[in-house]
Amino acid sequence: MTLQLGEFELIERIRRGQVVAAGSRTILGIGDDCAALALRPGEILLATTDMLMDGRHFLLDLHGAEAAGYKALGVNVSDIAAMAGLPIAALVAVALPRDRAEAVGEGLNRGVRVMADRFGIELIGGDTNAWDGPLVISVTVLGVASRQGIVTRSGARAGDAILVTGPLGGSLESGRHLRVEPRVELARQIQELAPIHAMIDISDGLVGDLGHILEESGGPGAVLEAEAIPIHEDAQRAALAGGRGALERALGDGEDFELCLTMSEAGAERVVAAFPGLRRIGWITADPRRLIRIGGRFEPWPAGGFDHLRAGCGRGGIATGAQA
Amino acid sequence: MTLQLGEFELIERIRRGQVVAAGSRTILGIGDDCAALALRPGEILLATTDMLMDGRHFLLDLHGAEAAGYKALGVNVSDIAAMAGLPIAALVAVALPRDRAEAVGEGLNRGVRVMADRFGIELIGGDTNAWDGPLVISVTVLGVASRQGIVTRSGARAGDAILVTGPLGGSLESGRHLRVEPRVELARQIQELAPIHAMIDISDGLVGDLGHILEESGGPGAVLEAEAIPIHEDAQRAALAGGRGALERALGDGEDFELCLTMSEAGAERVVAAFPGLRRIGWITADPRRLIRIGGRFEPWPAGGFDHLRAGCGRGGIATGAQA
Repeated sequence: MTLQLGEFELIERIRRGQVVAAGSRTILGIGDDCAALALRPGEILLATTDMLMDGRHFLLDLHGAEAAGYKALGVNVSDIAAMAGLPIAALVAVALPRDRAEAVGEGLNRGVRVMADRFGIELIGGDTNAWDGPLVISVTVLGVASRQGIVTRSGARAGDAILVTGPLGGSLESGRHLRVEPRVELARQIQELAPIHAMIDISDGLVGDLGHILEESGGPGAVLEAEAIPIHEDAQRAALAGGRGALERALGDGEDFELCLTMSEAGAERVVAAFPGLRRIGWITADPRRLIRIGGRFEPWPAGGFDHLRAGCGRGGIATGAQA
Repeated sequence: MTLQLGEFELIERIRRGQVVAAGSRTILGIGDDCAALALRPGEILLATTDMLMDGRHFLLDLHGAEAAGYKALGVNVSDIAAMAGLPIAALVAVALPRDRAEAVGEGLNRGVRVMADRFGIELIGGDTNAWDGPLVISVTVLGVASRQGIVTRSGARAGDAILVTGPLGGSLESGRHLRVEPRVELARQIQELAPIHAMIDISDGLVGDLGHILEESGGPGAVLEAEAIPIHEDAQRAALAGGRGALERALGDGEDFELCLTMSEAGAERVVAAFPGLRRIGWITADPRRLIRIGGRFEPWPAGGFDHLRAGCGRGGIATGAQA
């Protein structure tokens, strides 16, 4: 009797897609009060959450629900990448605009699944609501740390090289901020080749996020080399259209979702040789000042970066003379 | 040099409250890209998420931010209780109304911490946003399963007794829905005494949530005994004010956050003797019908329960003659 019901239960779960591939950590997926995961002995669990709101992190009418879903999962996966971790599972809670809840929900689901499938992430939990307000999507991603352990923001040391994984700037103007490319594999490959001392993903802008590393690492300083900073063609294009210059955009714009990391100079040489996209852009100093070398001169960093509480981009920066 | 920085880092983390009690699973709390948790060998991780919106799950102007924060964490902890699990950590993402972001944020934080402290839950992650929309709070709670394993919705068997952990109904009218009392300890104590076959927390209303158990368990039926169902004094009071009767409210109202569970009749006798609040309210049948015995007559269940997508309470019910 018990066995037969057990079998029925299993079939029912397979039917509902709750039974997952062999080797999966998921014991129980969507459909119960909680999801259940089995981690392997010695694994360290990573967990991160980000909430995206229509009008704030995307424009539903302009970008569509699929783009919002893709970005909402992507920014969380990028946080896992910033710890050199591997994403394994996600929980998605949404408040859907009531007048088009079904269409928006389906679009979100498509976008979330594209990102999830890219990284083999299992959708293990969710909460679906409808209301009279704008679309809100809140995602939690769970992951596991690499064999070498977690990489935090707080391990930068004087003498470290500072690196970024790709070109920066102009992501908001071009819409690139929606097409998040989390650097999961690259971070893990770098960490295999040379120990990463500190790492962060660039969501607030290079100087803002590198500033977080400096603060969390006990207050060393840094020198950036203006000529070494990889400037995205989106930033070049935006600069041609007027306003701030391309370098200023690369330094201060947010939502690039590249990684900024520090490691020994010897390690940096190895990884730059191995991964063409990686660029060494400066170094950590015992001197707590934050400087940028432009031509032969050292100047203080521009203030700011992309501040989610103040909205928009383009405050501060070298051109306006604001100070960090 | 490395050691000195390491010490500085530790001090800095202690200052920020990131270093937690000995025995804690938290390696890294709020303040980095992700939190990091170490689970013990063999532990199964539970994860659940729920999003609460102003005007939908609470009224900010009427109830205040502290009540919203308390409820938002509480409903998630109740989901962990429904698996007989132990909550260990929470991540909280919020969209704060911009014109009073600070005051609302502080109130939420107070409410979340009251609930967190009651259950020893560590706040390991968060995302704080401000916008022009209403308050939204999305919580993810992580927990671990009991030594006996996870308790799902899907294990009910014909012949099982059906039990509830406390009186039901009238929670929305009285505001009791804000003062969630997750049955974490009781669920674990019951599970120690006799194996729980299936369990759910009552958020949609007794008939709705017991219906979920029946569906997930492969389609058995159930008989409820009207006279055995514990009716909350809030339901009695609301019934006196008119509209639906007290029994109907106990059957159909939602947001009680008591647990509904099934186990063998022998087990039910043991646990009812041990825990005075527990009530045996019916039994699971091989016959797939869902019946309630009122006086000597068997009637079909009333339709509904509290449906979060349709809003409000009080649809269907015995008095209106709606059928399941």
